[in-house]
Amino acid sequence: MGGNSFGTLFRITTWGESHGEALGVVIDGCPPMIDVSVEEIQKELDRRRPGQGTGSSPRKERDRVEILSGIFEGKTTGTPISLLIRNEDVDSSSYEEWRDIFRPGHADFTYQAKYGIRDHRGGGRASARETVARVAAGAVAKKIIGQERMEVMAYTVELGGIRAKRVDWKEIDRNDFRCPDPDAAKEMEKRVEEVRSQGDSLGGIVEILVRGCPPGLGEPVFDKLEADLAKALMSIGAVRGVEIGAGFVAARMCGSQCNDPLGPAGFEKNDAGGILGGISNGMDIVLRVAVKPIPSIHLEQRTVDRTMRPVSIRIRGRHDLSAIPRINPVCEAMVAMVLADHWLRQRALRG
Amino acid sequence: MGGNSFGTLFRITTWGESHGEALGVVIDGCPPMIDVSVEEIQKELDRRRPGQGTGSSPRKERDRVEILSGIFEGKTTGTPISLLIRNEDVDSSSYEEWRDIFRPGHADFTYQAKYGIRDHRGGGRASARETVARVAAGAVAKKIIGQERMEVMAYTVELGGIRAKRVDWKEIDRNDFRCPDPDAAKEMEKRVEEVRSQGDSLGGIVEILVRGCPPGLGEPVFDKLEADLAKALMSIGAVRGVEIGAGFVAARMCGSQCNDPLGPAGFEKNDAGGILGGISNGMDIVLRVAVKPIPSIHLEQRTVDRTMRPVSIRIRGRHDLSAIPRINPVCEAMVAMVLADHWLRQRALRG
Amino acid sequence: MGGNSFGTLFRITTWGESHGEALGVVIDGCPPMIDVSVEEIQKELDRRRPGQGTGSSPRKERDRVEILSGIFEGKTTGTPISLLIRNEDVDSSSYEEWRDIFRPGHADFTYQAKYGIRDHRGGGRASARETVARVAAGAVAKKIIGQERMEVMAYTVELGGIRAKRVDWKEIDRNDFRCPDPDAAKEMEKRVEEVRSQGDSLGGIVEILVRGCPPGLGEPVFDKLEADLAKALMSIGAVRGVEIGAGFVAARMCGSQCNDPLGPAGFEKNDAGGILGGISNGMDIVLRVAVKPIPSIHLEQRTVDRTMRPVSIRIRGRHDLSAIPRINPVCEAMVAMVLADHWLRQRALRG
Amino acid sequence: MGGNSFGTLFRITTWGESHGEALGVVIDGCPPMIDVSVEEIQKELDRRRPGQGTGSSPRKERDRVEILSGIFEGKTTGTPISLLIRNEDVDSSSYEEWRDIFRPGHADFTYQAKYGIRDHRGGGRASARETVARVAAGAVAKKIIGQERMEVMAYTVELGGIRAKRVDWKEIDRNDFRCPDPDAAKEMEKRVEEVRSQGDSLGGIVEILVRGCPPGLGEPVFDKLEADLAKALMSIGAVRGVEIGAGFVAARMCGSQCNDPLGPAGFEKNDAGGILGGISNGMDIVLRVAVKPIPSIHLEQRTVDRTMRPVSIRIRGRHDLSAIPRINPVCEAMVAMVLADHWLRQRALRG
Repeated sequence: MGGNSFGTLFRITTWGESHGEALGVVIDGCPPMIDVSVEEIQKELDRRRPGQGTGSSPRKERDRVEILSGIFEGKTTGTPISLLIRNEDVDSSSYEEWRDIFRPGHADFTYQAKYGIRDHRGGGRASARETVARVAAGAVAKKIIGQERMEVMAYTVELGGIRAKRVDWKEIDRNDFRCPDPDAAKEMEKRVEEVRSQGDSLGGIVEILVRGCPPGLGEPVFDKLEADLAKALMSIGAVRGVEIGAGFVAARMCGSQCNDPLGPAGFEKNDAGGILGGISNGMDIVLRVAVKPIPSIHLEQRTVDRTMRPVSIRIRGRHDLSAIPRINPVCEAMVAMVLADHWLRQRALRG
Repeated sequence: MGGNSFGTLFRITTWGESHGEALGVVIDGCPPMIDVSVEEIQKELDRRRPGQGTGSSPRKERDRVEILSGIFEGKTTGTPISLLIRNEDVDSSSYEEWRDIFRPGHADFTYQAKYGIRDHRGGGRASARETVARVAAGAVAKKIIGQERMEVMAYTVELGGIRAKRVDWKEIDRNDFRCPDPDAAKEMEKRVEEVRSQGDSLGGIVEILVRGCPPGLGEPVFDKLEADLAKALMSIGAVRGVEIGAGFVAARMCGSQCNDPLGPAGFEKNDAGGILGGISNGMDIVLRVAVKPIPSIHLEQRTVDRTMRPVSIRIRGRHDLSAIPRINPVCEAMVAMVLADHWLRQRALRG
Repeated sequence: MGGNSFGTLFRITTWGESHGEALGVVIDGCPPMIDVSVEEIQKELDRRRPGQGTGSSPRKERDRVEILSGIFEGKTTGTPISLLIRNEDVDSSSYEEWRDIFRPGHADFTYQAKYGIRDHRGGGRASARETVARVAAGAVAKKIIGQERMEVMAYTVELGGIRAKRVDWKEIDRNDFRCPDPDAAKEMEKRVEEVRSQGDSLGGIVEILVRGCPPGLGEPVFDKLEADLAKALMSIGAVRGVEIGAGFVAARMCGSQCNDPLGPAGFEKNDAGGILGGISNGMDIVLRVAVKPIPSIHLEQRTVDRTMRPVSIRIRGRHDLSAIPRINPVCEAMVAMVLADHWLRQRALRG
Repeated sequence: MGGNSFGTLFRITTWGESHGEALGVVIDGCPPMIDVSVEEIQKELDRRRPGQGTGSSPRKERDRVEILSGIFEGKTTGTPISLLIRNEDVDSSSYEEWRDIFRPGHADFTYQAKYGIRDHRGGGRASARETVARVAAGAVAKKIIGQERMEVMAYTVELGGIRAKRVDWKEIDRNDFRCPDPDAAKEMEKRVEEVRSQGDSLGGIVEILVRGCPPGLGEPVFDKLEADLAKALMSIGAVRGVEIGAGFVAARMCGSQCNDPLGPAGFEKNDAGGILGGISNGMDIVLRVAVKPIPSIHLEQRTVDRTMRPVSIRIRGRHDLSAIPRINPVCEAMVAMVLADHWLRQRALRG
């Protein structure tokens, strides 16, 4: 139990290093008789590929997914689904210089401390490339919850300090940042160019919305729906904070403002973000995550090598300038898996 | 697996309803030969008792803990530790009016939706009283991590919009709000009185600090230390957001600001909040949680009964005005358990 | 995760020592809306009480079960069910002599080796008294599977070398040994008296039969139904072997004998014991367990103390002469829990 | 959680169908810094390849294992180890006739009942070919326990009714049946030829011996060492019974015979089979499993198709005549994994 499995009934185990042979995921617990095609999974992987929005990674990952088991004649069989993505275009030589140096903001120091050994090539297991397996598994989870008419969307509400002022779903796919406010998207573009020229990087805030979630999902008192969602999202490398509904703003509300009144047609507002007492209430589930800036920057940085001797480094090559928007489908995948899992748990409980 | 267990190696299972016979917890996986006394557990329970700070619950819970198993001649034996707290002074008659009505902001609606049945008395399992079992188990976890010189402290950095401007550890126990800034504490008192007279309630922000955590705790890629901490804290009823280190502020930083440089003596600042890549880095762990206002307010509220017919209600009796500061030891307990668990997991991995 | 939990969806955690305050169990994952009364649980506990068949323990355990949570107005609520049995009539003074001596056949040596500390009173956690918690939880499991018309029966097919030659269900409750063959029961009685006069003890074989199990339960390839059943039964103290269907006899069969042919009405014989490929096939499930003789005998035995110095001991007091028949309801309880668990797992998978 | 994971700390998840693209396993929880080479894993796989002893499968599986992750420069890194074996030489056309027919003794009927869909080609997930992933993972487990000087050996003590009368370790690798008695091996050969000419198949008994196991492994009361071993072994397709130490013979012993006396040098005999109260006692661990005959026989058999219409079938092609001796390395693998897992659990508990 090394921490690479997630979920209870819809349970995934991911594996793979950035510059190893391949990455992949095994899904154990997917119900049988669900239509799943390689194209559907590939489509989700394509959404997190490099070269989007703030991305500039030159690595030509086609990220071709292979289905190795668990799907027969187009349908899941209830046996484990093994998905594999080969690493292509891997040149590890440029990473040789980091073999004994801890890059600031990266997990180099802590992996060395924890395991006493690390694959330094491309960040090894700690690379954001690890999320390719999450997205592949998430594609299957989306099929399960899609059957129940649940839908997950992640979009950028803040980037480099520029905040979206309105949410127009149609706009999300029309700009590079997956921002629902086209005016904000233009400002984000300027901000990105500015920071790119400085050799620096940016963070932001992603909002995740779930529509169509039925009431009743979530297992108090520890596996509350928002608790599992918080873990799911906080397990993504760049995420430094998670909030639900009114979130940190709720801390400044009075009870009379924060409580959502109920009327004959249901809840009359949604400051709870769709979850009460750890259980979905039938309203949209609304989450936001704080995404820190990419630690790989072109500016000179102070750090140490494995003997704790100070060194000054400059990371070369082209890296994404922000985890946004490539992190957005990863957020969707994690949320979809939590929902699939809890939907199955509720089915076990009530039939 | 109904969601009432937490942890992998240091694993607890809690049980009990607000107005049932008792509440309790079973700890399975506590190492043997650790000194644990009933007094030490009782002391932690006393810290979350009613009548503190913003509290005004008249229920005279002495919350006397009994140790029923797992401790022999003052030491843990490695067998399950069963702790029990009887419910005393329970008068459920006043709750009869809520049998068929869903109080806004409470879990009444969602428990009914999920289970098709609920113990309406005092909120049943969804009551904050549930946390008494967490605090009891946390007292044992504190003993384990205390042996490794780890220490957890939770204090109030914001209440009703009043923010602490400085952190002085000595002040925490000197005011009713567990606020490390005595000036802010005075303002908080005013704000509390004001809101009390209005029959309303307040939220705030609690910061949790871990000192002495060694590097190496946390199990990527899903059981990252911050992911398990986020789940632990988000599973507490009133918590609506969790952040680590710079948290949501990191979303507005550039990489050059956010990265913590390393020098011969270690990390030179701590915007990471003590965790990199899901693994503790040896610095203080710093977390903050957003606490929503107590949903039980004295003002009139609109809601519905089980037939979805609109009703207007007014909750009588005396309730806490804020989950703060009684939630603080609960936060400490949850964090202590995550640390104990990950400390054992790291011991399994490396000896 | 100290090994005191069992099951995945219907999950129990037991606790308690033979001479501690109490023993108990928490059931997490029981579906809501099931009628459960204290009398139904008590009835099962009464079936494993001392003074039956080969039993002669003078300890007057009334074994009164208390329901502390999870049941409201006679129905399960989906929250954890906590059951508690106080230890009464406990006199630990007679065990003082075993504080530093390892009794042969008991777990004294291994608990000391594993934990470095042990509660020597009455065997502590290693006492057969631990099974009282299993039987209490099993009573709830029986209610769940009873709703699906599944039924579990354990009966004695061999005791002290005397083998039942026929199976007549009506006879089981008519003799002290829960033996379905009245003639064998009479011989067993003679054998028991003979061995009792010698100060020795006896083993035997218990068969467990499940009627009404639908096809489809079991989760290959590791959580196969027979694998979980084998673990369940082998976790009972005195059990030294488990077999399903033809069991060890199948090892001597040819394939043409062992395969069960299928006809329009289903399987035409049942050497498979109701399970194929790890999944129930709709036939009766048939299991047998080998029960070793009780290690507490009145004869002189050689052993060592904690310093490994040889000592000669003689265990006084009155003990059961065989774990049979008191082990029979324990076997039923374990099997019922496995079935309840897998029934819920199948419901999660298929609805 | 579909039942395809095994272990708690040393945890594997296997996947793959007999005639799918590949089979494989992910090991999560392997400690870092252990030397593991592809050759060591391959060597174990070669031991379960077809064409040995009673085997006659014509399928030319080279079973080449690939290491896809978790091992860097010859050492484990603490990250998940992904092992993959491509299916080669797969011709599924001969299985087309079984698409709608349930072969007796196979899992065809139960997979259809459970999942509502099945990959009929070569038995799909229910094929014995699944065990290739177990053996690959077991090779890694053997490295872990080998560091602690533990060793696992499985050998044939009975085949087709022929029982080994003596145990000479040196003989095991010298005959086709992995039988430690060369005289019995010769008789087994005759029996095999006889049954082969009849178109039938055979079962037998395999004994598994663990040498070098330290005292203290096992987690009562449910994860007792023998309970986890029983589950591990019973999860292998052909196994119908498991016993430890004296096993079913213990059922006929008196306590005075069955108890193992202790002397200054330790236990003086080993009817307990190396485990007391669920915890290893430092003696050899001795287990035996009953292996049923292979269900694929050349004789005519009665069965039904999916509409429950009777059909008479004859299975063509060449199949193994017994699961023995190819099952022996599978038994070793399962036992090695249980030991590795419990060794890590004990390290978590005591350091």
